[in-house]
Amino acid sequence: MSERFRLDNVRVALVRLEEIIISRLIERAQFCQNPMVYEADALGAPLQGLSILGFLLQETERTHAKLRRYTSPDEHPFFSDLPDPVLPSLTYFDNPLEENEINVNAQVRWIYEQEIIPLICCPGDDRQYGSSAVNDVSCLQAISKRVHYGKFVAESKFRDDEAVYRECILSEDRDRLMALITDPDVENAVLQRVRHKARTYCSEISSASTEVLSPDTIVTIYSRWIIPMNKDVQVKYLMQRVSADQPVKDSE
Amino acid sequence: MSERFRLDNVRVALVRLEEIIISRLIERAQFCQNPMVYEADALGAPLQGLSILGFLLQETERTHAKLRRYTSPDEHPFFSDLPDPVLPSLTYFDNPLEENEINVNAQVRWIYEQEIIPLICCPGDDRQYGSSAVNDVSCLQAISKRVHYGKFVAESKFRDDEAVYRECILSEDRDRLMALITDPDVENAVLQRVRHKARTYCSEISSASTEVLSPDTIVTIYSRWIIPMNKDVQVKYLMQRVSADQPVKDSE
Repeated sequence: MSERFRLDNVRVALVRLEEIIISRLIERAQFCQNPMVYEADALGAPLQGLSILGFLLQETERTHAKLRRYTSPDEHPFFSDLPDPVLPSLTYFDNPLEENEINVNAQVRWIYEQEIIPLICCPGDDRQYGSSAVNDVSCLQAISKRVHYGKFVAESKFRDDEAVYRECILSEDRDRLMALITDPDVENAVLQRVRHKARTYCSEISSASTEVLSPDTIVTIYSRWIIPMNKDVQVKYLMQRVSADQPVKDSE
Repeated sequence: MSERFRLDNVRVALVRLEEIIISRLIERAQFCQNPMVYEADALGAPLQGLSILGFLLQETERTHAKLRRYTSPDEHPFFSDLPDPVLPSLTYFDNPLEENEINVNAQVRWIYEQEIIPLICCPGDDRQYGSSAVNDVSCLQAISKRVHYGKFVAESKFRDDEAVYRECILSEDRDRLMALITDPDVENAVLQRVRHKARTYCSEISSASTEVLSPDTIVTIYSRWIIPMNKDVQVKYLMQRVSADQPVKDSE
């Protein structure tokens, strides 16, 4: 059985997700913004009134749900009403999380469509709707996973300093909780690592291609949205971590 | 309108595909071989008798076909009987290829399942069937695209030296045609570039993870399968390039 959810493996997962997010954003940036891709009901009945991206995302999630993707504690769908898995269910013995229903994908998708696409793609329409949407789904899945990894990060922090966290959560002091989970040195280290990787990847591609996403833009996406949304998930998870928890033990 | 199919842009496309193929192979290599994923009818009716990979690949292609993926001259499906596009059709004004039906995806898939998976993944079963299959689909789509880019490469070579190619094709001398399209210096340059990129990517990840695909293995996949299959597509394309062509002009 895999040990991928062991808390000391969280860093490996986050580092791997950096490669994925950076490479997917670079791929999407080949194409124009193509606002048509995000327009609800642009094609009417054949896409069931959804946008092109919405349709592709929903169809992808329906298929992946059959392969039990969303039973994994690190996966969160953008759509509800997905079909049941056809694979026999898997018990995640190494899942360290408390049961929770936290899913911020509505926000992830809004920020991706409204903020990230205009930042990484040239304005305009190059008619590459399918390619754009396929890359969008990859970007959204990777960013969603990175953001929701906040649950694992928060669980790890909670276990390292349970008494302090418990008190802060019980007093419902979200600001103090946000301060507790924030480590500017770690955040800066992440941003530096992302900048270094983005430079490497962009330079590999720019040897052949003229239009390439700037590494600074990728760092901005991390600092402005990915890290803050991840911290938001940490706070949300912790706020319900204790109420969902066993009563405080006598010894505390 | 995009100029992505202009022949002097072929190199950009091939270089971009290197990043994609390398990163997808590294992602797949996180998981065990998981032979269950490739076993036909392992789950019976719920997957319509297909293997897990076959099911996911077919469902993915059905969705992508609706978004007209396989009307693009650089895309080739693994399945037939796909639904019609729901997007209005696109005219590829910049498509330089002669009409052709060449599709070697049956071979791509066979080599991927039988040869590449055992080479890049640890033996055994870690039950990560869904993650394995999702990464397999990404790998297969990228390798298929790279292999079928042979059509663009061949068209470019044909135009550069039309008389020689025409004579060689009309005499049906496949061996000489293979010799004509082969440039060992270019092949070595590709392998060196792949080795360099694979080293960069693997070292980024191995800072955090212990089990990482070796860069040499990725180079082997290029030299043993991807380049030869691409050349096979070049020869196939050229062999029907002339017969499908206009009659030889007087001036020749």
